[in-house]
Amino acid sequence: MAWQEYINVQQPRFVEELLEFVRIPSVSAKPENAGDVQRAAEWVVERLARAGIEGAEVLPTDGHPVVCAEWMGAGPDKPTVLIYGHFDVQPAEPFDLWTTPPFEPEVRDNKVWGRGASDDKGGMMVPILAVEAMLATQGKLPVNVKFFFEGQEEIGSPDLPPFVRANADRLKADMIFSADGLQWAPGQPQIVEALKGLISLEVHVQGPRGDLHSGLHGGGVANPAIALAQIIASMKSPDGAITIDGFYDDVVELSAEVREAIARVPFDEADYLAETGAPATSGEPGFSTRERLWGRPTLDVNGLSSGWQGAGTKTVLPAEASAKITCRLVANQSPETIYDLIEAHVAAHCPAGVTARVTRNPGRADPFLVPSGHNATAVATQVLEDVYGRAPYRTRAGGSIPVMTTLLETLGVHAVMFGFSHDDENLHAPDEFFRLDAFRIGQIAYCQLLETLGRS
Amino acid sequence: MAWQEYINVQQPRFVEELLEFVRIPSVSAKPENAGDVQRAAEWVVERLARAGIEGAEVLPTDGHPVVCAEWMGAGPDKPTVLIYGHFDVQPAEPFDLWTTPPFEPEVRDNKVWGRGASDDKGGMMVPILAVEAMLATQGKLPVNVKFFFEGQEEIGSPDLPPFVRANADRLKADMIFSADGLQWAPGQPQIVEALKGLISLEVHVQGPRGDLHSGLHGGGVANPAIALAQIIASMKSPDGAITIDGFYDDVVELSAEVREAIARVPFDEADYLAETGAPATSGEPGFSTRERLWGRPTLDVNGLSSGWQGAGTKTVLPAEASAKITCRLVANQSPETIYDLIEAHVAAHCPAGVTARVTRNPGRADPFLVPSGHNATAVATQVLEDVYGRAPYRTRAGGSIPVMTTLLETLGVHAVMFGFSHDDENLHAPDEFFRLDAFRIGQIAYCQLLETLGRS
Repeated sequence: MAWQEYINVQQPRFVEELLEFVRIPSVSAKPENAGDVQRAAEWVVERLARAGIEGAEVLPTDGHPVVCAEWMGAGPDKPTVLIYGHFDVQPAEPFDLWTTPPFEPEVRDNKVWGRGASDDKGGMMVPILAVEAMLATQGKLPVNVKFFFEGQEEIGSPDLPPFVRANADRLKADMIFSADGLQWAPGQPQIVEALKGLISLEVHVQGPRGDLHSGLHGGGVANPAIALAQIIASMKSPDGAITIDGFYDDVVELSAEVREAIARVPFDEADYLAETGAPATSGEPGFSTRERLWGRPTLDVNGLSSGWQGAGTKTVLPAEASAKITCRLVANQSPETIYDLIEAHVAAHCPAGVTARVTRNPGRADPFLVPSGHNATAVATQVLEDVYGRAPYRTRAGGSIPVMTTLLETLGVHAVMFGFSHDDENLHAPDEFFRLDAFRIGQIAYCQLLETLGRS
Repeated sequence: MAWQEYINVQQPRFVEELLEFVRIPSVSAKPENAGDVQRAAEWVVERLARAGIEGAEVLPTDGHPVVCAEWMGAGPDKPTVLIYGHFDVQPAEPFDLWTTPPFEPEVRDNKVWGRGASDDKGGMMVPILAVEAMLATQGKLPVNVKFFFEGQEEIGSPDLPPFVRANADRLKADMIFSADGLQWAPGQPQIVEALKGLISLEVHVQGPRGDLHSGLHGGGVANPAIALAQIIASMKSPDGAITIDGFYDDVVELSAEVREAIARVPFDEADYLAETGAPATSGEPGFSTRERLWGRPTLDVNGLSSGWQGAGTKTVLPAEASAKITCRLVANQSPETIYDLIEAHVAAHCPAGVTARVTRNPGRADPFLVPSGHNATAVATQVLEDVYGRAPYRTRAGGSIPVMTTLLETLGVHAVMFGFSHDDENLHAPDEFFRLDAFRIGQIAYCQLLETLGRS
């Protein structure tokens, strides 16, 4: 029997198993569900064993556990592929907005409805089932495969970096694929080439010791809220370019070829404005909206705070003012360098009569850009084209996925996102669902991916 | 007996009466004390009668009452003087910070300690006692005198403008003196020549319909917090001058003579910085700190609000941002004109990609400047110099006193502040006190004032 036929025949059982997996409320954010996260890890180990992967283990971290497993039977001449996914899920609240209870999943309209069905329980089962199909029909895999599943993705994987560093040998691989990823739309695959990095900071401006009466002291001492406005305004030109000295220095410019690839992905400006409700798109000149969203670094003020914010008037000259700022970085910007540049900028642009300081918040992430011509990406692209009959869009994301950076930094390998969820599947909202078509197509795609990698 | 002797002889009784007056907890801000405010008004009527002023009346307003009285026996050839004061007091909380209970006044260190002793019960008794001394010793006054005392000064005199408009004939006078005022320091009188006006407004900047994910939308649409910062920054040059077109157009410039008068009033920059805790003085170039505080219009941001203000990072691109702004105006700026100029400025400086609107808050006040050579001021200056043996400082105040504007607008007369409190007397704080020396000197000064006015 070919793996294709196995997948077709076993699909009803696979769906039942997905329902069983979704029934475990492995909410990593809620301490009372810690036992469920552990139970989900154990379920994964059993499921791997059923797929023919022996020796899978639940391994502890300082928080929720991880699951590691490997099948190294292809031998040292064949590449080793690491597949990543996660078995924890988002909280399901508010429960009353669900059509059916989040942890009592059911099948409707050829979709599985339940918390985690799409993110990422369905997604992470896909490569396990693909491996089962190949092992069951051929007794072996075309390449060596390692599995690395975690239980804390939805809370930002706080304990993952030390675990990966401590287990770098165990996780060592030639290529990494993340089963936690999205396709562009049903029938339209994508390859995510880049993710943005992130830094978060606060600018604090201090004027007088305490709030002063604006009538008695206005005109005598500088106003920290105005000084903060002047500092922020100095960071961006009126046309939207960031004016912090050196900010763009390390940016990998978008090549003509990359800009063409971005332009091939449909983008409707009117739809985008209707979605966001903004009166106009806006940003750095010289780039399309999508180029800015995907390929250019940004600086946003996330919050402003100063003085009186209640109703009506309070004639106060505030003692202090502060702004929360995040920057999204692109390759090859370094979070540390950008922090330093912003700190220098604030020092150079602090008006007379106040003092300003910058504090750095936790949560920095390096930008992630798959090198042009990267082998795993090329193979994944070809497989997706074969499976869908359409070339995948080459996309980028404005968000950060810290685990991608962790794997790159520690293992030295650029992960390729190879997942089959869709962003309309209510991933972090009530009525999450996973398309069963995508579940099956994903299994086929993973089999083809392993086969193609085995031939190369 | 001369009035001087009468004042000396009767002083112990006057002090007892002040204690009696202070015992009435006429807190205008607290509804439960409304009866006490009424009681204080009745006490004033009785006290006026005891001074020889018949026909004093408690008159209703839409809020706390006022007291009106007059002595017109000097005849139509003599000027009519209106004397203003207030019999309501600030709340006394927190009670436990008072050395002795706020409404059980006592004399210590030749001071009366209690809520309202200085602001303004002691102050407003001074002219009543002066009039008593003259009537008791001479049977008449050198000029016609009207009294106008109110019971809602500490809550902003909301019902005063309609009352004054409706009773303009009754209050009509050639000169107005306010017994609610400060001397510079013990032994050093002052004449307040100007008060600043006030406008209050808010600038609201709207970007997208709701808060957006800064990773998904940063660089796509404009950031309202940055736009707000740009708008605010556009209102002031880095050196502190206000850059709103036309803002200074109607300002009465400080003459060389006025600047000299201001420079004669001691000002210690180091003391001022120690008091405010600001790292440096700062403001419009070309003027001394005190000239800016007293004689130049100002623009202050009183509050900033946008997006996430809690702890840590929230990667949000906020939907909106707002700033509260007050301007202190000087003669002859008009609140309406300045509102219009700011609105036009915001419209002209709103960056692309957001919308901005200005809302006008209640509480506007016209600036107040006693005209140069004003007769009542000249007389008051001479009297203070005679009484103290020192020329009064010519000062200005950054704050607004709405009743001064109301009296000017309705009666067409610039009031002269002629009061004997001091700003170290804990006017709105626990342990308020009034110097008994100033109480007595004030009575002498008011007698001399009326005598001098009667001669001119």
